[in-house]
Amino acid sequence: MSAESRFLTLLRLLAHDPAAQGLSDDVAILPVGDTHLILTSDTMVEGVHYLPTDPAADIGWKLAAVNLSDLAAKGARPIGCLLNYALSGDDAWDAAFLEGLGEALDRHGMPLLGGDTVKMPQGSVRSYSLTAIGEATGPVPARGGARAGDRLYVTGAVGDAGVGLDLAQADPAASGPLVEAYRRPRPRLAEGALIAPHASAMMDISDGLLIDASRLGQASNLAVTIDHIPLSRALEQVRGASTAVQIAAAQAGDDYELLFALPASERPPVHAIPVGQLAEGSGLTLLIDGVSVPLPDRLGWEHG
Amino acid sequence: MSAESRFLTLLRLLAHDPAAQGLSDDVAILPVGDTHLILTSDTMVEGVHYLPTDPAADIGWKLAAVNLSDLAAKGARPIGCLLNYALSGDDAWDAAFLEGLGEALDRHGMPLLGGDTVKMPQGSVRSYSLTAIGEATGPVPARGGARAGDRLYVTGAVGDAGVGLDLAQADPAASGPLVEAYRRPRPRLAEGALIAPHASAMMDISDGLLIDASRLGQASNLAVTIDHIPLSRALEQVRGASTAVQIAAAQAGDDYELLFALPASERPPVHAIPVGQLAEGSGLTLLIDGVSVPLPDRLGWEHG
Repeated sequence: MSAESRFLTLLRLLAHDPAAQGLSDDVAILPVGDTHLILTSDTMVEGVHYLPTDPAADIGWKLAAVNLSDLAAKGARPIGCLLNYALSGDDAWDAAFLEGLGEALDRHGMPLLGGDTVKMPQGSVRSYSLTAIGEATGPVPARGGARAGDRLYVTGAVGDAGVGLDLAQADPAASGPLVEAYRRPRPRLAEGALIAPHASAMMDISDGLLIDASRLGQASNLAVTIDHIPLSRALEQVRGASTAVQIAAAQAGDDYELLFALPASERPPVHAIPVGQLAEGSGLTLLIDGVSVPLPDRLGWEHG
Repeated sequence: MSAESRFLTLLRLLAHDPAAQGLSDDVAILPVGDTHLILTSDTMVEGVHYLPTDPAADIGWKLAAVNLSDLAAKGARPIGCLLNYALSGDDAWDAAFLEGLGEALDRHGMPLLGGDTVKMPQGSVRSYSLTAIGEATGPVPARGGARAGDRLYVTGAVGDAGVGLDLAQADPAASGPLVEAYRRPRPRLAEGALIAPHASAMMDISDGLLIDASRLGQASNLAVTIDHIPLSRALEQVRGASTAVQIAAAQAGDDYELLFALPASERPPVHAIPVGQLAEGSGLTLLIDGVSVPLPDRLGWEHG
């Protein structure tokens, strides 16, 4: 058991309010008056969640995007956020961070309402948190609501950000659609709002298709089969589409596409790619070209 | 201009939503349905906001208390909070932190709803954030709503936490009411809820009576006179009550008493101590034993 798992066990004892959902989801759902607030908070740590060489504006963008993506997965409308910022000691860096953050917030109609700014001792590893508040505009799909027979869909290709990270690690000046996918993920807010009333389960893919699909299956007490791993043309051009490349794409994190389950009789309300299905039972099965393949040791990005 | 001031100038350009109040208050006020949410977030940094030798449980308590105190100053009822936690690498330390945090949250009816837990690289200075959400149960007093002729009150003595910090710095094993005031501040939620419908202005004293009173005056476009600095018996026993001790108490931070303004015709709805008044004009005047004394160079704890 990792230190994070042990800590979460203790944290669950404190988070006994029903709105916390036993910390089993990325968000809390808090009834207020006649509406529901969707609450989420993500922290990004230098060298853990981003490369020290990543441009400041992209780090700011990404902090906004990862939080907005959690709201998207609940079909929520952004209504406000609070920023916890550690000053860098470099005014230009701070200004660029805010520019990227502001760009992502403005693009998605998310008002910045407050927060806290602190100065860290010289040489500290810095971290940033954003707490995002959304309002549920309709039914809120849980991670664990899928039913046997449901089909699984994603809103776009997976694996681009993982390859983009590799490229950025090899060369901080690298650019192009794959690096862009890693540094400037697009939260699927419009898609999430359209899908939410129909989906039996939904979550964003932040840690990789395989691990996130297995979490959705586990939360729904169902077995998951992934039978298709959608790759982008940009990724295929760089890496090809071999079985190994497909598996790597399904293990890669930072995609921020939405993964959702629909009854087999329903068609997705937005452009989406079928990737598998849910059935009675448990566990994860991976089919490539219709043939079952052994699961990789590491399904995706495990926190902590 | 400090790096924080420069950053806040940029941040204000982003935080243009009316709910952000131009970042002029400790909280944001967000209308949702037929109610108002009060939003606040505070970050505590090791070695900046607490001593590395402070007990973990007290650091957890304090993180909860400082955020709850911001809600108290708006007369808000706590409805939920999210924790951003950096694992210490020491399970016992993490457990003690959570115990103290949980104690403060439980004591004040604040549900923990979620957040994010991260692992920092070895040896990092750690920081913790809590984002607190309250619901306004009635009128929300602004920092800048005071009127000429209003009297200023505080809900308790000031300066205890400042002396407690000195004692804890000299001896990490020190105990007693002053160290307790520094390590386990009591957010004045019950008092805040009773005062809010009557106060023309209210804020918590987090940086010191003098600086916070001058901020209240400035936000209200009024001149402030502080004519009484209430000291606790515990503080007087250790330090006496000389003019220098009184001034030091009014400069000390971390009190978390409420500072509020009432029309001269009204009596405070809770036990409170008159400390001064507001008049047309600007600036801060300090009277001790009825005699005007020069202001200290440093009015209180300046962030950043």
